[in-house]
Amino acid sequence: MNSDNAHADRRAQMEKETGRLEAFSDGVFAIAMTLLVLELKVPVLALVQSRGPDSRTLASALAHEWPSYLAFVTSFFTVLIMWVHHHALCRLVRRADAKLLFANGFLLLLVTFVPFPTAVVAEYLKTPAAPAACAFYSGVFVLIAVAFQLLLMAAFRKSVLDPNAPEARLRRFRKDYRLGPPLYLLATIAAPFSPALSMGICTALWIFWAVMPICIEPSA
Amino acid sequence: MNSDNAHADRRAQMEKETGRLEAFSDGVFAIAMTLLVLELKVPVLALVQSRGPDSRTLASALAHEWPSYLAFVTSFFTVLIMWVHHHALCRLVRRADAKLLFANGFLLLLVTFVPFPTAVVAEYLKTPAAPAACAFYSGVFVLIAVAFQLLLMAAFRKSVLDPNAPEARLRRFRKDYRLGPPLYLLATIAAPFSPALSMGICTALWIFWAVMPICIEPSA
Amino acid sequence: MNSDNAHADRRAQMEKETGRLEAFSDGVFAIAMTLLVLELKVPVLALVQSRGPDSRTLASALAHEWPSYLAFVTSFFTVLIMWVHHHALCRLVRRADAKLLFANGFLLLLVTFVPFPTAVVAEYLKTPAAPAACAFYSGVFVLIAVAFQLLLMAAFRKSVLDPNAPEARLRRFRKDYRLGPPLYLLATIAAPFSPALSMGICTALWIFWAVMPICIEPSA
Amino acid sequence: MNSDNAHADRRAQMEKETGRLEAFSDGVFAIAMTLLVLELKVPVLALVQSRGPDSRTLASALAHEWPSYLAFVTSFFTVLIMWVHHHALCRLVRRADAKLLFANGFLLLLVTFVPFPTAVVAEYLKTPAAPAACAFYSGVFVLIAVAFQLLLMAAFRKSVLDPNAPEARLRRFRKDYRLGPPLYLLATIAAPFSPALSMGICTALWIFWAVMPICIEPSA
Repeated sequence: MNSDNAHADRRAQMEKETGRLEAFSDGVFAIAMTLLVLELKVPVLALVQSRGPDSRTLASALAHEWPSYLAFVTSFFTVLIMWVHHHALCRLVRRADAKLLFANGFLLLLVTFVPFPTAVVAEYLKTPAAPAACAFYSGVFVLIAVAFQLLLMAAFRKSVLDPNAPEARLRRFRKDYRLGPPLYLLATIAAPFSPALSMGICTALWIFWAVMPICIEPSA
Repeated sequence: MNSDNAHADRRAQMEKETGRLEAFSDGVFAIAMTLLVLELKVPVLALVQSRGPDSRTLASALAHEWPSYLAFVTSFFTVLIMWVHHHALCRLVRRADAKLLFANGFLLLLVTFVPFPTAVVAEYLKTPAAPAACAFYSGVFVLIAVAFQLLLMAAFRKSVLDPNAPEARLRRFRKDYRLGPPLYLLATIAAPFSPALSMGICTALWIFWAVMPICIEPSA
Repeated sequence: MNSDNAHADRRAQMEKETGRLEAFSDGVFAIAMTLLVLELKVPVLALVQSRGPDSRTLASALAHEWPSYLAFVTSFFTVLIMWVHHHALCRLVRRADAKLLFANGFLLLLVTFVPFPTAVVAEYLKTPAAPAACAFYSGVFVLIAVAFQLLLMAAFRKSVLDPNAPEARLRRFRKDYRLGPPLYLLATIAAPFSPALSMGICTALWIFWAVMPICIEPSA
Repeated sequence: MNSDNAHADRRAQMEKETGRLEAFSDGVFAIAMTLLVLELKVPVLALVQSRGPDSRTLASALAHEWPSYLAFVTSFFTVLIMWVHHHALCRLVRRADAKLLFANGFLLLLVTFVPFPTAVVAEYLKTPAAPAACAFYSGVFVLIAVAFQLLLMAAFRKSVLDPNAPEARLRRFRKDYRLGPPLYLLATIAAPFSPALSMGICTALWIFWAVMPICIEPSA
């Protein structure tokens, strides 16, 4: 009985430790995703008619905000996918040490920042400043992809990794994520020539990671 | 003893998996509901008197914001009810796989979006643009009702469902939710003719789901 | 062994149920408290000197915002105390049923609303419109106190209460909370005559509840 | 078996108690950190050219916002480090009593406040009002450092401390944190003479705490 409780205590302690890191990270991911909506602006309609704005004007103003919706959806799903993978990553880890905490902190800093470039794209995608807006947006995601690499490096050390984590899974993780930094860099370089191509690469990337099966399916 | 711990470990693992999905979803629901308050604007009073705005002017300005309060309450309770049912739904599920994660993600995207149509209704309900504002608002809820259907479909598959989930309960869930998409669609179609009717249907729907007992009461 | 696991499963199930309600409520309390800061506005300084605003102007502008700080601190601690007591209340409850969920939902609606009257007080406390602002502020807390009463009524029913909850504690809870609605009503009625008295009553109330010991100390 | 379950029940009860305090605090930390992004403002570009703003103007406007980025990063990491240490501190505590709850509440009040001085620094760091902005910023962190001291005092009492908490660790905690109030005070006093020095001290402090190893590494 005594040894049973001791075992349970140790396990609970360990669970609690990475558990709180996960819960905190989840909070930041969830809030960053939800704050994106604050960048959507209610259209301010000029009172062209003396009796106030009419439905047609409002409908057209709402439709005109499509760059905001596009930026909102792209950022939302990119952060969501990142959360799903963060989730998968955390399940491979047993302990949180200083390196992991700070690699995670750096990623969270950038995730927290996402609503800002999103708002910049929403504001300027239809203007001649779109190249700078898209370069800024995908440039931030270059940094995020690098931060994810650093997190993988911090997590895949023997001292923090779950000894039962399947080697094939770690390899797959490393392989699929290696694509992030160069492809977001490509999106950044493409932005001055074609903002549409730049946003297209960003969209293609979250769809690619969304359908990447191995990291989501629990190990059999 | 060994087998006891193994059992506890497996159960803890499973709990943890859907547990984190629930916790994350809860975070998004809670934040989306709380952000609604940011759409309420402190009245800006013109300095008609030389000595600043008086109490009567402020009281009347606060009272004039009733469309904001109505939109706030409607959106708050609709999201709250959705959370309660999401909660009931999660209790029937044992595992989170990719399909469930993405069906859930699509629902969360739309939940996160709710403060925006809420702000549009708050701004335009008293203007001639009310039909477009209400059609936009209920149109978003059509999408949300469809997303909830997709989530039900993803959750009610044998591979993720708790084998002990009572069949009667699943049937009831399916039946009551089938009403969502057509009724919100009706609210959207009604909006150009009567914004009040449109908002009335939206209100009636959350009250209906609030009193729908089976999904809340724990299975006996 | 089998019966041990069954016991653990049942307990875990119950924990999970009220646990998710608590976690969700905590989220709403935490977000509502944190959003209060968004009502604090960075002073916009007129460029009186050609070389931009100087330190003295900024310092005096920041000091002039004292009604904002006062409203921020009052709302923060009032919601914090409410959270502490919500916490104490939840420990007495074993099960979450529909009544409890909706009484809780109504309280959360009002907690979520708090940043709005806080911003109204911050904006108008130094103007002749202070009576209306303070009446609005304390009026919202009348509703919150009533919602807390409803939550106590929903929680202190035999079907949801922990059978081991000490009767003396329930009595004390009921007694101390009975003061909320009439005293906030007094603050509302006092506001037209003296905004300072009204805010003073609101401050005195959270201090009174903060030092009310029985609800915080765990039952011996 | 009976005594086993009783043991598990007691432990779960205790876990739950400090667990909810931690979870709530985590929520506040996470939200305060994430709200910092809302202080970053999308540049509003004047339509100098008839065809709208161009990329060069946007890029230069984004680069001109460096004080905002600096303030964002400094505040983010300072709050993150504080969270890591709060985390380490909570692991040494077994029980939450009134004193601990309110010391924690006072710290959370100030953490919640951080986005406001951050926005003030972001707005005025490049203006002649920088001394006042930096004094305000570091002055808030003096208060936060004092609040952390109060929390340490509330946590390191026999009645709430884990009896197994290693004495060496508590001593180290006390020693390293003693530096906070005087050094932030120095930053506040330095601000009128050199805003850059003031911000430098604030940055040096979070880096110092970030590399302070003992509080992060779990006790061997």
